Amino acid sequence: MSRPPWLDDADERVARAAWSRLAEPGDHDAGRFVRRFGAVAALRQVYDRGPVGVEVSERVSQGEAVAARWRVRAGDLDPRRDLLHLDRFGGRVVVPGDPEWPTGLDDLQHRAPFCLWVRGPRSVAPVMESSVSVVGARAATWYGERVAGDIGVGCAAAGITVVSGAAYGIDAAAHRATLQADGVTVAVLACGVDRGYPRGNDRLIEAVADSGCLVSEVPPGSAPSRWRFLERNRLIAAMTRGTVVVEAAWRSGAQGTAHQALELGRAVGAVPGPVTSALSAGCHRLLRDGATCVTDAAEVVELVSPVGFLDLGPPGTMRVAAVGEHDGLAPLELRVLDAVPLRSAAGAAAIARTAGLPLEQVQAGLGRLEARGLAEVVGRGWRRVR
Amino acid sequence: MSRPPWLDDADERVARAAWSRLAEPGDHDAGRFVRRFGAVAALRQVYDRGPVGVEVSERVSQGEAVAARWRVRAGDLDPRRDLLHLDRFGGRVVVPGDPEWPTGLDDLQHRAPFCLWVRGPRSVAPVMESSVSVVGARAATWYGERVAGDIGVGCAAAGITVVSGAAYGIDAAAHRATLQADGVTVAVLACGVDRGYPRGNDRLIEAVADSGCLVSEVPPGSAPSRWRFLERNRLIAAMTRGTVVVEAAWRSGAQGTAHQALELGRAVGAVPGPVTSALSAGCHRLLRDGATCVTDAAEVVELVSPVGFLDLGPPGTMRVAAVGEHDGLAPLELRVLDAVPLRSAAGAAAIARTAGLPLEQVQAGLGRLEARGLAEVVGRGWRRVR
Repeated sequence: MSRPPWLDDADERVARAAWSRLAEPGDHDAGRFVRRFGAVAALRQVYDRGPVGVEVSERVSQGEAVAARWRVRAGDLDPRRDLLHLDRFGGRVVVPGDPEWPTGLDDLQHRAPFCLWVRGPRSVAPVMESSVSVVGARAATWYGERVAGDIGVGCAAAGITVVSGAAYGIDAAAHRATLQADGVTVAVLACGVDRGYPRGNDRLIEAVADSGCLVSEVPPGSAPSRWRFLERNRLIAAMTRGTVVVEAAWRSGAQGTAHQALELGRAVGAVPGPVTSALSAGCHRLLRDGATCVTDAAEVVELVSPVGFLDLGPPGTMRVAAVGEHDGLAPLELRVLDAVPLRSAAGAAAIARTAGLPLEQVQAGLGRLEARGLAEVVGRGWRRVR
Repeated sequence: MSRPPWLDDADERVARAAWSRLAEPGDHDAGRFVRRFGAVAALRQVYDRGPVGVEVSERVSQGEAVAARWRVRAGDLDPRRDLLHLDRFGGRVVVPGDPEWPTGLDDLQHRAPFCLWVRGPRSVAPVMESSVSVVGARAATWYGERVAGDIGVGCAAAGITVVSGAAYGIDAAAHRATLQADGVTVAVLACGVDRGYPRGNDRLIEAVADSGCLVSEVPPGSAPSRWRFLERNRLIAAMTRGTVVVEAAWRSGAQGTAHQALELGRAVGAVPGPVTSALSAGCHRLLRDGATCVTDAAEVVELVSPVGFLDLGPPGTMRVAAVGEHDGLAPLELRVLDAVPLRSAAGAAAIARTAGLPLEQVQAGLGRLEARGLAEVVGRGWRRVR
């Protein structure tokens, strides 16, 4: 197979764009091949009959065998066409080394994408610095969509980018809420960034492209496939600082994303739900597998924030529900309080006897209870304030 | 203060029964004092004016100071009266060293109870060998009571003793379901075992006494107090192999029990619920603090069973919800399946091109898909089976 003319002056960017059409996402062989020889040289081997170079070592022969795999697809390959098409709607190709390349992807090693096809005003790498993936079931419940929305709003307020897959259900709820709260949201697609999938989310996907960005590792015009959906999930896991699963069935794509994030050492959170809901079973499974329980936006922000960076405000400001009368009492004070009568007053000695405590401790405890408005002096004794 | 006549021939059991009336549950000083001198000698020091022994070392002086604390309560002390009263309704006192003494309590060290006042046909230690505490909110929801009930039934079937505190809500639901499933259940009370608390659970508490047992560290006739409720929780945590919290507010007694269990190295589980429910907030907090997420009785049984002991049955028999067409397919097969057309058939070479895979792998993959009924030969090509 003869080399196409465009390959003669192709640079690494063009060659990587070509590879993204030649090999399927996450293909180990192609990834290793490109990492070993570089995208341009590896591409030339696909077209050349024999291996590149003079020395026919075993290593090069292996490369030749691998190269042969993509010849069948290389016939009408022309990345310039894809780049031109992308250019028409303001897209760009991002490759390793570019300032916009999210370095988290490098953790995928030979499973890293060859390039990212990107559309939208936001630069990918900077918005991923502080980011979280919010993923979950397509057939989400009202509960799940509400929680995903709350997380989107909270992340927007905290300046954290919300990344998801533009699917129905949890994905859409997270994107939508973040947009409405003027936050930054990024959709990672399993198809080309020139087409929205699913169709029903077309307008949402365009809105994401208008203010955040769309990202894909497959070139414009590519259709989604089950394989591409699965592999897309690894990008979501690798690009962000952490992944939160809001609702997921016992087996689900969102769980796959979370497990990839765990393997990559990213923070992983799962939102609990009723044990009677099949759509929370996957989240509970993740909690058993080591995910962190997250119940609100504040906990999601905490999950993906560097340790010590975060100020959650004074403890209890957000979460304390009912505070009982004895909350905050030291054990000693509680024991004294138990011994103070409700109706007729009792002397400190009697209270000490009832409490089984030394008199001087009881006297000090009564003073503190009085200061808290829990006990009062009546005549010569003490009584509880109701 | 002169020694009462009964103390002259009191043995360790009688002396410990006396201590259980003299000192409040969990009193560190009393616990250390009794551990150091033995219950009988420590009791004699309470009555004697000076310290026991000839040598007035600093250590003994400390003992004397401590002993003075209980003199005020020792006036009308007579443990024989308590023992006689207990005997009338078939109760007994269990002390360390007895075969019925649950050795888990020894982990509490100087916070261990002096004795247990017990009523019911079951011997405490044997039924605690395989046991779980099921605790939670008094003001439980229908959801929480249902889950507690399911756990009770499942534990009964697995031969695991269900321990709780006989309170309204989760406690009562767990006891009741276990009883109805002919399981063993034990109620640990904050009051004497001769009286039920709360009154509304009188019949339930009597039913527990009839088939399982009632346990308390305070003597018959004792009223519950907030302090005693809190300290009762440490017994529940220490006696059982693990503690499961079903529903609990952000601050709650059940959470206290769980934290004590964690400190004692016991297994701790928490049942998740909607993040919108204040009564699940405590459970979610526990999950963040290291508790295991448990969603059904099987997971509770697993939690408190020795590792490797348990047979949960073939994986997936209980929990797999919807199994999609591509579940169980190897990545390669999935990629081949993605490339097999739905309508008009395609040859293996064309499929290999679409899939970006070597021809021989695609041929093998097609064979496996055919065997699974996912692809079929039509003419000279392959088509997906819908």
